Amino acid sequence: MLKQKAVMTDLYQLTMAQAYLSSDIASKQACFYVSFRENPFKGGYAIACGLEQIVQFITSYGFGEDDCNYIASIKDASGADLFSDDFIHTISSLKLTVDVDAVSEGTLVFPNEPIIRVTGPVMQCQLIETAILNIFNYQTLVATKAARVCDAAKNKPVAEFGLRRAQGPSGGLLASRAAVIGGCSSTSNVEAGKVFGLPVSGTHAHSWVMAHDSELEAFRSFSKVFPSNSILLVDTYNVVSGVNNAITVAREMERRGAKLSGIRIDSGDLVWLSCKARQMLDAAGLNYVKIVASNDLDELTIQSLNDQGACVDMWGVGTKLVTAWDQPALSGVYKLCATRVANTDPWTPQLKISEQTAKTTLPGMLAARRYFDAAGIMVGDMVYDEQMLPDNDLIVDPNDELRQKDLSGLKCVELLEPCIRDGKQVQNTPDIKQICENTKANLASLHASNKRFLNPHTYPVGLEQKLIEQRDNLIRQARALRV
Amino acid sequence: MLKQKAVMTDLYQLTMAQAYLSSDIASKQACFYVSFRENPFKGGYAIACGLEQIVQFITSYGFGEDDCNYIASIKDASGADLFSDDFIHTISSLKLTVDVDAVSEGTLVFPNEPIIRVTGPVMQCQLIETAILNIFNYQTLVATKAARVCDAAKNKPVAEFGLRRAQGPSGGLLASRAAVIGGCSSTSNVEAGKVFGLPVSGTHAHSWVMAHDSELEAFRSFSKVFPSNSILLVDTYNVVSGVNNAITVAREMERRGAKLSGIRIDSGDLVWLSCKARQMLDAAGLNYVKIVASNDLDELTIQSLNDQGACVDMWGVGTKLVTAWDQPALSGVYKLCATRVANTDPWTPQLKISEQTAKTTLPGMLAARRYFDAAGIMVGDMVYDEQMLPDNDLIVDPNDELRQKDLSGLKCVELLEPCIRDGKQVQNTPDIKQICENTKANLASLHASNKRFLNPHTYPVGLEQKLIEQRDNLIRQARALRV
Repeated sequence: MLKQKAVMTDLYQLTMAQAYLSSDIASKQACFYVSFRENPFKGGYAIACGLEQIVQFITSYGFGEDDCNYIASIKDASGADLFSDDFIHTISSLKLTVDVDAVSEGTLVFPNEPIIRVTGPVMQCQLIETAILNIFNYQTLVATKAARVCDAAKNKPVAEFGLRRAQGPSGGLLASRAAVIGGCSSTSNVEAGKVFGLPVSGTHAHSWVMAHDSELEAFRSFSKVFPSNSILLVDTYNVVSGVNNAITVAREMERRGAKLSGIRIDSGDLVWLSCKARQMLDAAGLNYVKIVASNDLDELTIQSLNDQGACVDMWGVGTKLVTAWDQPALSGVYKLCATRVANTDPWTPQLKISEQTAKTTLPGMLAARRYFDAAGIMVGDMVYDEQMLPDNDLIVDPNDELRQKDLSGLKCVELLEPCIRDGKQVQNTPDIKQICENTKANLASLHASNKRFLNPHTYPVGLEQKLIEQRDNLIRQARALRV
Repeated sequence: MLKQKAVMTDLYQLTMAQAYLSSDIASKQACFYVSFRENPFKGGYAIACGLEQIVQFITSYGFGEDDCNYIASIKDASGADLFSDDFIHTISSLKLTVDVDAVSEGTLVFPNEPIIRVTGPVMQCQLIETAILNIFNYQTLVATKAARVCDAAKNKPVAEFGLRRAQGPSGGLLASRAAVIGGCSSTSNVEAGKVFGLPVSGTHAHSWVMAHDSELEAFRSFSKVFPSNSILLVDTYNVVSGVNNAITVAREMERRGAKLSGIRIDSGDLVWLSCKARQMLDAAGLNYVKIVASNDLDELTIQSLNDQGACVDMWGVGTKLVTAWDQPALSGVYKLCATRVANTDPWTPQLKISEQTAKTTLPGMLAARRYFDAAGIMVGDMVYDEQMLPDNDLIVDPNDELRQKDLSGLKCVELLEPCIRDGKQVQNTPDIKQICENTKANLASLHASNKRFLNPHTYPVGLEQKLIEQRDNLIRQARALRV
């Protein structure tokens, strides 16, 4: 288990918490929702990931004594203690009593719909914002990138090995989990294998070859130690001579009743070299020896290499996957959408307008439904307010109210599922295999046009009619009252 | 202290380690060096960062019982145990006896020079590769990004608050450390404040305003709790009305003998809005109230906003700093450069040619010197082999041997300093303040043309003459023998 600490937060969550406490509205009820503004990588979808760690974080939440001592020591600009004794006392024994509803991991999600919803005392909801976003944003980003890379690789396995270039140790660890959820078949990260039970893979590096007097000797020695797990890296000096040495060793292995698993090419023109290597291996009767390719790959290079006929049986993808190279952050936000004073009051919808329309939020107790056609293909999502159940199946484009879509008669499912009630987990966490199955099933139900890399078709996420009216009324109200 | 685990490694480091052990060359001596291939962000320099965590990792290295149990459970393709009992036994009690020499944190570093050098039994050097690169690559990247952002901000402070979009929890934690080393004045990350003793900052979010019945009431309430630490976020509904509310509260604070610290604008046109806000605040006699600006900023937007006359006193930078948005990974590598059989043998230089010239490595016991002119400005670095001390101060361009620079008569310093001998730390780790001072002094000694964002002048890093001859001879040898 990966323990996230309560102290992993922004200072302003603590200052706001103290202010809530001082102003006596710490127990006012609030509802926050997580959503993101744009699909990553200019793509057509994202894959929700990270919920397991979020649930662990919330259900095991607590400040340790050293955390409290540190927080008590923080000074303000005047040199006085920033936090009161009262506040330190409160957080030192704080346990969370929030409710959480969320889409299950591996589920496809789209811009501007609620993905995680947190309800509870406003102070508590506030304190956990940073960790929830940190966990959700990164894993969702990498799971999505992995799905794209695996899509480009077609049915060939993709091994993730980005740890050395990942953004910090846990960047590597969580990247490995998310990469497998997104579709990768294995990771090089031993800790991730241990912590999350992921399949691990890898054989040797250039240094193994360089540490020997000759490449042939290095290959020979390695193949004796790993008769069922030798993928020989053939480009330390020159790929053609490397493949020749690998062939020599493969034949020696055959005489010992073993089989060379594969060769790996990590530089140069991967189309030309992989085809040349395939030809050489086949001519030597070694058609069972697989070819692994790596070298700063991503979904676009793999797609291009495949289009050119690269003879590659397995792809190794590192840096560009674990750092989500072309868009290294998901724009996930955690926004207040409703408040109430007493537990028995109805919820009052809240929204933020902002100077930028894209940053305007949705008001209400947000929930979402997904509609499927008869063939099981997803046709649209409806965001609605749980306090005003939909009367029909019409969804309205939030940016163009004249654009509507009638989904009546179609099968639909609720996207948010109860995860935590009163601070306690209410649903077992699925294991990695189940999550991977969910990813596969979800991707299979998304139309190919939404998965295209270049200018994908926009998947329709619309608002229920009463929700859009609620939003527009609040915007009018806020602009009239406050400008 | 941030504990990095031995198990944070790529599987192939373990398979190679077992192969070294089985082939009886585990104790063969090796020298590896860390370097990178290109300056990040198309810039002119990088700032070395992460050494403290690398030293901690090496000096506290060890596999726990559960690590060993996990590694022992890994199967190969045939379903047999991948690792032998002998190997598990060896790593279960392994302590490192390596030597490490490195440039101190906060020092400017450039492509293709040795930054960290690890010497010791080849198996040990191999096992720690992944962690060293993971730590070095990310922190160096973020420290460099931070230096660029702070450069653009001129003398105005920059607060880092990227935790929610950072790549995992430790991504956020290490990013905060590196950001401060690169020049940021504070971080929002409470855990980073606690673990590394960094200054922390932050006040409130939009949700604070939305949780109240009006913005004015929200500001008023906050200012009472934090009379010396209130920066009011004015763009929840509309900046102009937000500033008016802040002015009302600032006047109320004055009557209580307190002072509003500042306002923050997080959306919209930051030039127009900051100037408008400045004008309104000044007209209200509140010229001491600072203006903080944030919203997906990086060095280029800050430079542009400053050029346009933005009235900003402090910058908040998050996502694009901690994820190093435009280049989210540094291309740092760890390459074998020399080997020897017995401790008393001379070192044999080693190199890797690769299919790509950029991936060809340098051979020898690599070290580096930096030359300064009379004004203290850096003029060039020389990479040499410690076994062949330089006879002169000539440096040769590694990619164009006819391009040479004579640095004789200039003051020079050695870049690599001893950090670890026989697995033990031999030099106290400087504290964060000392490292920040080192960064400042280093940046001050780099000519402005090397710091430019657009097409910076290339800082000269050359090879000592005998080293380039050594490299060329080995390339000729490898190509003649192995192609």
